[in-house]
Amino acid sequence: MKKLRTDIRDIFDYGLKAADPGEAIRRTIVLNGDQLTVGDRIFDLSKYERIFIVGAGKASSAMAKALEKILGDRIAGGEVTTKYDYGLSLNKVSINEAAHPVPDEAGIKGTEKILNLLEKCGEKDIVFCLISGGGSALMPLPVAGLSLADKQATTQELLKCGANIHEINTIRKHISGIKGGKLARAAYPATLVTPILSDVIGDNLDAIASGPTVPDRSSFDDSLKILEKYNITKKVPSKVLDYIMRGKEGREPETPKEGDPIFDKSYPVIIGSSRLSLNAARDRAVELGYKALILSSYVEGETKDVARVHAAIIREILATGNPVKRPACIISGGETTVTIRGSGLGGRNMEFVLAAAIDMDDMEGVALLSGGTDGTDGPTDSAGAVADGNTIKRAGEMGQSAEEYLQRNDSYNFFKGIGDLLMTGPTMTNVMDLRIILVA
Amino acid sequence: MKKLRTDIRDIFDYGLKAADPGEAIRRTIVLNGDQLTVGDRIFDLSKYERIFIVGAGKASSAMAKALEKILGDRIAGGEVTTKYDYGLSLNKVSINEAAHPVPDEAGIKGTEKILNLLEKCGEKDIVFCLISGGGSALMPLPVAGLSLADKQATTQELLKCGANIHEINTIRKHISGIKGGKLARAAYPATLVTPILSDVIGDNLDAIASGPTVPDRSSFDDSLKILEKYNITKKVPSKVLDYIMRGKEGREPETPKEGDPIFDKSYPVIIGSSRLSLNAARDRAVELGYKALILSSYVEGETKDVARVHAAIIREILATGNPVKRPACIISGGETTVTIRGSGLGGRNMEFVLAAAIDMDDMEGVALLSGGTDGTDGPTDSAGAVADGNTIKRAGEMGQSAEEYLQRNDSYNFFKGIGDLLMTGPTMTNVMDLRIILVA
Repeated sequence: MKKLRTDIRDIFDYGLKAADPGEAIRRTIVLNGDQLTVGDRIFDLSKYERIFIVGAGKASSAMAKALEKILGDRIAGGEVTTKYDYGLSLNKVSINEAAHPVPDEAGIKGTEKILNLLEKCGEKDIVFCLISGGGSALMPLPVAGLSLADKQATTQELLKCGANIHEINTIRKHISGIKGGKLARAAYPATLVTPILSDVIGDNLDAIASGPTVPDRSSFDDSLKILEKYNITKKVPSKVLDYIMRGKEGREPETPKEGDPIFDKSYPVIIGSSRLSLNAARDRAVELGYKALILSSYVEGETKDVARVHAAIIREILATGNPVKRPACIISGGETTVTIRGSGLGGRNMEFVLAAAIDMDDMEGVALLSGGTDGTDGPTDSAGAVADGNTIKRAGEMGQSAEEYLQRNDSYNFFKGIGDLLMTGPTMTNVMDLRIILVA
Repeated sequence: MKKLRTDIRDIFDYGLKAADPGEAIRRTIVLNGDQLTVGDRIFDLSKYERIFIVGAGKASSAMAKALEKILGDRIAGGEVTTKYDYGLSLNKVSINEAAHPVPDEAGIKGTEKILNLLEKCGEKDIVFCLISGGGSALMPLPVAGLSLADKQATTQELLKCGANIHEINTIRKHISGIKGGKLARAAYPATLVTPILSDVIGDNLDAIASGPTVPDRSSFDDSLKILEKYNITKKVPSKVLDYIMRGKEGREPETPKEGDPIFDKSYPVIIGSSRLSLNAARDRAVELGYKALILSSYVEGETKDVARVHAAIIREILATGNPVKRPACIISGGETTVTIRGSGLGGRNMEFVLAAAIDMDDMEGVALLSGGTDGTDGPTDSAGAVADGNTIKRAGEMGQSAEEYLQRNDSYNFFKGIGDLLMTGPTMTNVMDLRIILVA
């Protein structure tokens, strides 16, 4: 059992390491003489006059630092925005700190600096745009004539009426000066390379940080239809409605679309993601001797029910060796939700482990871990928790009823009480959650 | 797409056929001269004087009919109880019909006939006890001094106070004249063979029909503790409490336990189950060219969230070939629950398909089926439903909003409207649900 717990943490740490901003940059971007390999492309730096670094996101300062180490004095300058207190000390790139998740004026100033820098860029320059989770809020810039308050009021109305994230992003992109491919337009005719640390299920490039460097698939027409669908044309600020109406009539610039020549010089590359972390965890599990199966990186839904499905798989492995024989490792990613029923302290990862542990009660040779790759699960200092077939019994002996803790969403205190919190400290990254099952 | 739909129904039908009572009997019980093979055991019928058939359950009449065809005139007689309208015409075995799920006096009379028959059996007789889902309600017999009403009132109190199924069964077994191994005790010293069609997750023998022919793991002491735990010692009929108190003091007979010599002559064998049906479906999928994976036969939880996990696996197969490469087939069993939110008509299988279809919208080369193996999903004439990546769009064109139908739990009308109900007619069996995913 102790070996299982050591192994499961080891496997988690490999998944986590694969999402580390510096690690992700170093894995993907390699300089050899003047040849810079970025993913599956090679750029001959001798052909470029200047190299700039821009970007925004919670991990973007760490990404910039790693890229500085690779490119050193070749870098002409840069402007990168990150969250307050996330800024690292850099040599060539100027770091701007701003508010997240609710944007502030510092975010706007940072974005203006980025656009000013991009304006100076010419055909012979190469720009790296470092994108990571939080990039949308950290790189706010309403189109001319609208204020940050107008944008925020619009988002609030959309949230209130029940619009989905795709619909919200459609409107956001159309009233933003930088989202929905507009950063790529600003960088053109420079060459644009966008290393992306994805915090989005499925890694849709136009969803991560609202896709500042990739083609947009939505239109002013779609935007207006969404306002009409939810009957909020009169509820959003009138300037916003006016802007969208003008756009629909062709009097404001559409977001750039697939096929636009600006994208001929734009190279987005995912350098870290749920999928890459699941792969890293899987490879480590195989090294440790487990038959490993990645279930899905798209897992969503109510945490305790998702946990029961995972527990059902553990039970099946024990009973029949399906879907994979022992020693088995099952890995999943994505992000579940918790419907709050009680007033306890917890997070989706800890609640997942607590709910599964109840179903795992008395099973032998099993271990389960769930952790948020950002190192914080819910409003706590823990990334998640670990459990085995003995967890419920051990807690019971200490007077802790798992069902009661689950009922009041108090998973943090449950695992704190039995010493099974998963502590990682801040990780400066986010590729959602990692769930790992071991069956010896 | 049409091929996928043909294949998925084909695979489902194989799973269903494996759970057919007659099919299950014929697969497991084979007569060759005097040698009767039952699973992995062989009985030399020339060594037995008489063969009797008893049993209870919704499928037990069909099981008896198949066994009559095998054993013919060798059968000395028999008493089998099934649900009203489920009785088939038999030659050697007398069929009793009774009420299910709430037991009635006809059930008690049938049980008394079984016990009277078993009393006549001697050391040289062999008895087949045919157990299937519903066997518990169809074979009621309170211990002497208690009435059916006393037993029912006790069950009601246990349900009301939130006791779990394990706790309810503990008490039931102790106030029953036949459950918890007591049928085996009555059959002793005859040889007892118990072919079981399991409708229980995990196929725990002592849970199926309350385990009339297998050792009981609970005690009078446990029974009293359960009444005390839920504070209902005063709420159950006083005769029930008195009986349990007397049992605890050793003045009433305990249920037979593991190691009791009566079980030396008792041979339970699972002839049909979720697991066997999943295996049959898997084998058929492989024949049809799919790489097939059994996820779990233990799937429980809120239907729409379980559906989302299945949809997440489809998405992963499409994106990365995990957990299995295309053409892929994923199979799961067990039984989910539906928290009713609306006043629509539906069942867990149809709701599962509806919820998953929303997540599958626009996916290409995918199909999904979920069906109850008893042929009826919820209070409807449909066993479940089928969907593909085009389902939501097609329904939308007919003015049906999937989200709205799901919100009001109206999955039956949703699939009826688009002609995608899964109709099987009554199947006379139940090994819970079968869910099948195909990704071409």
